[in-house]
Amino acid sequence: MGTVVKSKERVSRRTMMKGAAGAGATGLAVGVGTRMNGGGEVKASALQSSVEEIAEARGLTPDDITAALKTYVPSGVHDDFLIFSSGGQSGQVLVIGVPSMRLLKVIAVFAPEPWQGFGFSNDTWDVLAGGEVDGKVLTCGDTHHPGLSETEGQYDGQFLFINDKANARIGVIDLRDFETKQIVKNPHIISNHGGTFVTPNTEYIIDGSQYAAPHAWQYAPIENYADEYRGAMTFWKFDRDAGRIAQDQSFSVELPPYWNDLADAGKGPSMGWMFSNTFNTELSYGSGGGDAPPVEVGASQRDMDYLTVINWEKAAEVVAAGRAEEVNGMPMIPMGVAVEEGLLWFVPEPKSPHGADVTPDGKYIVVSGKLDPHVTIYSFEKIQQAIADGKYEPDAYGVPVLDFEACMEAQVELGLGPLHTQFDDQGLAYTSLFLDSGIARWKVGGEGVDDGWKLIDMIPMQFNTGHICVAEGDTVSPAGQYLIGMNKWALDRFHPVGPLLPQNFQLVDITGDQMQLLYDMPIGIGEPHYVQMIKSERLENIWEVYPEVGWDTINQAPSEFATQIGQERIERDGENVTIYMTTIRSTIRPDYIELQKGDKVTLHLTNVELAHDATHGFTMPGQDINLSIEPGETTTVSWVADTAGTYPYYCTEFCSALHLEMMGYLLVTP
Amino acid sequence: MGTVVKSKERVSRRTMMKGAAGAGATGLAVGVGTRMNGGGEVKASALQSSVEEIAEARGLTPDDITAALKTYVPSGVHDDFLIFSSGGQSGQVLVIGVPSMRLLKVIAVFAPEPWQGFGFSNDTWDVLAGGEVDGKVLTCGDTHHPGLSETEGQYDGQFLFINDKANARIGVIDLRDFETKQIVKNPHIISNHGGTFVTPNTEYIIDGSQYAAPHAWQYAPIENYADEYRGAMTFWKFDRDAGRIAQDQSFSVELPPYWNDLADAGKGPSMGWMFSNTFNTELSYGSGGGDAPPVEVGASQRDMDYLTVINWEKAAEVVAAGRAEEVNGMPMIPMGVAVEEGLLWFVPEPKSPHGADVTPDGKYIVVSGKLDPHVTIYSFEKIQQAIADGKYEPDAYGVPVLDFEACMEAQVELGLGPLHTQFDDQGLAYTSLFLDSGIARWKVGGEGVDDGWKLIDMIPMQFNTGHICVAEGDTVSPAGQYLIGMNKWALDRFHPVGPLLPQNFQLVDITGDQMQLLYDMPIGIGEPHYVQMIKSERLENIWEVYPEVGWDTINQAPSEFATQIGQERIERDGENVTIYMTTIRSTIRPDYIELQKGDKVTLHLTNVELAHDATHGFTMPGQDINLSIEPGETTTVSWVADTAGTYPYYCTEFCSALHLEMMGYLLVTP
Repeated sequence: MGTVVKSKERVSRRTMMKGAAGAGATGLAVGVGTRMNGGGEVKASALQSSVEEIAEARGLTPDDITAALKTYVPSGVHDDFLIFSSGGQSGQVLVIGVPSMRLLKVIAVFAPEPWQGFGFSNDTWDVLAGGEVDGKVLTCGDTHHPGLSETEGQYDGQFLFINDKANARIGVIDLRDFETKQIVKNPHIISNHGGTFVTPNTEYIIDGSQYAAPHAWQYAPIENYADEYRGAMTFWKFDRDAGRIAQDQSFSVELPPYWNDLADAGKGPSMGWMFSNTFNTELSYGSGGGDAPPVEVGASQRDMDYLTVINWEKAAEVVAAGRAEEVNGMPMIPMGVAVEEGLLWFVPEPKSPHGADVTPDGKYIVVSGKLDPHVTIYSFEKIQQAIADGKYEPDAYGVPVLDFEACMEAQVELGLGPLHTQFDDQGLAYTSLFLDSGIARWKVGGEGVDDGWKLIDMIPMQFNTGHICVAEGDTVSPAGQYLIGMNKWALDRFHPVGPLLPQNFQLVDITGDQMQLLYDMPIGIGEPHYVQMIKSERLENIWEVYPEVGWDTINQAPSEFATQIGQERIERDGENVTIYMTTIRSTIRPDYIELQKGDKVTLHLTNVELAHDATHGFTMPGQDINLSIEPGETTTVSWVADTAGTYPYYCTEFCSALHLEMMGYLLVTP
Repeated sequence: MGTVVKSKERVSRRTMMKGAAGAGATGLAVGVGTRMNGGGEVKASALQSSVEEIAEARGLTPDDITAALKTYVPSGVHDDFLIFSSGGQSGQVLVIGVPSMRLLKVIAVFAPEPWQGFGFSNDTWDVLAGGEVDGKVLTCGDTHHPGLSETEGQYDGQFLFINDKANARIGVIDLRDFETKQIVKNPHIISNHGGTFVTPNTEYIIDGSQYAAPHAWQYAPIENYADEYRGAMTFWKFDRDAGRIAQDQSFSVELPPYWNDLADAGKGPSMGWMFSNTFNTELSYGSGGGDAPPVEVGASQRDMDYLTVINWEKAAEVVAAGRAEEVNGMPMIPMGVAVEEGLLWFVPEPKSPHGADVTPDGKYIVVSGKLDPHVTIYSFEKIQQAIADGKYEPDAYGVPVLDFEACMEAQVELGLGPLHTQFDDQGLAYTSLFLDSGIARWKVGGEGVDDGWKLIDMIPMQFNTGHICVAEGDTVSPAGQYLIGMNKWALDRFHPVGPLLPQNFQLVDITGDQMQLLYDMPIGIGEPHYVQMIKSERLENIWEVYPEVGWDTINQAPSEFATQIGQERIERDGENVTIYMTTIRSTIRPDYIELQKGDKVTLHLTNVELAHDATHGFTMPGQDINLSIEPGETTTVSWVADTAGTYPYYCTEFCSALHLEMMGYLLVTP
């Protein structure tokens, strides 16, 4: 079996190459180039298939060939970047490698997921229940904007936050184990959109209301919209040591019943401030059961809406000074106080704005008007000057509206339906064009920049791009290199899979003079809205296994229910039965459990293995239970044995050659 | 913007190329080859990056380059094959393109999925409830073996079936819209594994019990295992016109309390028969609370277990003749009757068998012994001859065990831990080796074949391969070309994502003299057990949109609740409120709904669009509702308005530039 040896050599070679990757070109790789440049026959593999033969047979163009070579990541080689993507209405987060565009994991956040055991173990159910509404534990969500934790304006690879627009909730994911640890429900607003965006040191997680409603999830007649409906900007305090949002140190700023869209935190010179665009200043709430036009018409009347500008550092001081009001258990700064304290400002923005993105240097804020072909760039310095100069008039709610011309730095005409802007490491900006189905590249201007505020080129997208992402493109130091367009319509891009189509992520190489489309990635799990792309090397704290056998993965601490081999037992206290169970290849202990009908069962299950990838699963027929017990984890599930029967339970993760035999019998006597 | 035009040309060109794909090499592609063979500088793209520069910079080996080119599928070009993969403990089915290995869709089957609205609309909840256990609707499952419907032994692209091992259920997916239409629970057995495997014209879906238990989900003391625990082989009748399993025409054959593993249907000369391997003939049930060893030891004592051989055509006649017994509402042929009628036989199989695969010509059955380094090949003709010659002795349950030597055609030594076998179009077979972490290729023998029953070569896998799949490799006419190894351990293959790792699908080119590894695909959604790979061209019945506006997607017929534009209305009958709603870019009608606290609401929602990809979503805050309404679909959801408040509902699928404005207000008065 000579081929086997050859292939094994190949695997080891890969490991070597990975080690040498930092050097860029290895001796081997140079060898490749030499052989391919040589005249005559090109033999690129032991298969005797040459590059041109394959390209010909498969109809690949020259651009396809470079795209293939720029995106292929061989077995055992790791991707250079990871993207964390919202999973849209799936309620989850997707983790994808770049440039391979391979889906590495779906992280359950707002919807139960049996593979991960999320929502099936007691502790993960409790995480979901943290976001309950009026006693109902929700099992879906509409995730929009993932936010990686930052230190000094750069991703630090520690935590990920994600919003649920539908129910105004935030999920917190620990990037040591890629699991959701907390869900909080916003007590003030019922619908969010401008979240999650973090401040430069993750002091706060910004969460802006979308559709106005009476605060605190209350009822008010629709005709009282102007008076009783409100927006809010919530600042969730993040306790990094605890790995939790600290609701008791969080607060909101009351806003008029405009609808807030996307937000971004200031940095550098604009540190301490945040920016959000705000539309529907028309106060449309649709027909309201009468003759008024629907929102799509009603909210598109005015030529200008607003950029909302908030000094969050000042707001925190105002809360500390006791000038906020307690609303539904959390402080809120009333609009009047916010205005009085000079921490809340509006700046006019052209028509139905979308996207508010701060340049890496913190000097400018870029806003798109989705019904306007321009991006509008505001200067933070000019905004401060306009405030100092008193260049403002109050709006109907008394919020000072700064003079547009005084704050505006530039406008760049890009195309139809501009939405979102990201930045690279070369001083360039990229803006998605929803209606034109493309991405415009333009040059950021400012002091000392020649030819700034100018469109460079455009690449078409397939089709209708929403958000875009440049690697680390919303940090203080973008990485550039790759751009991803998140396209809302896929149409003919992929093999048909029925009337519900995947979305289409398109990977673009932005290193060259022209942008090159590299890869179409179908997303057949929800509609991802936004992603953040982080250099792999920043994710240095990921655990291969849990720190010790018997680990409470929610509290990231030793579990009080940890069970070692030999400690397995079944304890009965009346009808309450507690089982301490272990898993190890290929045995579940105990492998026999006898219950009486009506027993209340609590099962503590410990995976006593600490070998990498030695995960075990656990299922109990008819009880709607599936758990994932990663190496070292202790988890708990409770149920009532309400039906007599014979229940074979087993390991659901193919762990070993005798995995099918890794089972036990639970009997419930009549 | 010259680049735009260029890129647009590229898109059109792609469309042309797709049209010409049947011809193999297009003029353009030949051009590529010529340019790359020419001496001097190779300029493969407008980016001025040459193949060798990219390969050098990215450290790609010659094999990597060919692998990249063999797997890259450019934007707008469709994959040649689709695979339908079990989603393991995720409870779902994954649809993946080959050779690109891109995940095109996750189809919800046994677990709710909000993006698809599965389990959230009334009708999809009813589908889940079809598999309820003792009144509990289950929201998880352990899918193992997808089975595509067949006509004359070849996939016909119409339906897909998938089992839930944990609760002995079967899901039925319609491949016109890739949605789950039915879930049935096996009334006889509590745990299945040998399903779903279809007979050559999808007459029946085979579903074999895994862990023995008293029939009909009953209780019996573990010490009565030999007498009261039983296995069964269930034959689910499929009604192709109705697109449903017809439970009233289905039946089981009673089996001893051995554990059945994998099954396959006979074809050609063996049409009308089926084969399943059977282990734990030791009758181990683990410790049973006493001193007996766990199953991993107890079930591995004997040198021989059994291949179970059933004449299902005869069994159907026996049921029709009234010789079956009604057990929990479905007929079962008692073992004694099965033996008497000559429809049930055992053939000895070496040690802990796994996998039972019928050769494409239907002449042989290949079985692996997972604790034996061989595959054992049985001749169907020899089995029939042994039956005719009376070469058998009864086992402890009276089932005739045929003579091993009389039935055995050949044994091939392959390596450690052989599990599953598939076939290609060249007369070769492929067997996964779990312990050796590889796939062995060997030659099928038989009449007129030289050098048959012989190992050819092996390719290592990363790591621990379970099932494998060759394109159409379990049909009467395998397509060959690609093989996929489903590896259970990924270890270092991908960028770390925490202690719970993805699985690793490895795509292998089997067209050459040596097998070539092409691609590693991480599966971060459950642990897929088995896949089937079908030529794309067989999936010709897929709908782009539903046939008409107002479509009931479960019954695939016009819905009685279809609502056209202008017919939207709110009807009240006491506290019962019925809403007829429509969606169209970018309006939801009605956009205002007023309810009283306590109202019982039924919402019928019709997407009045028939444009490809014009799906709308719908969510209602705090009510745990997310629906997907594909073009033409009518769907229904009910809830109780039990909390006063102001609820902005909206479209959750980014459908248009004014998608954010596609909303309405529902008010519940206190």
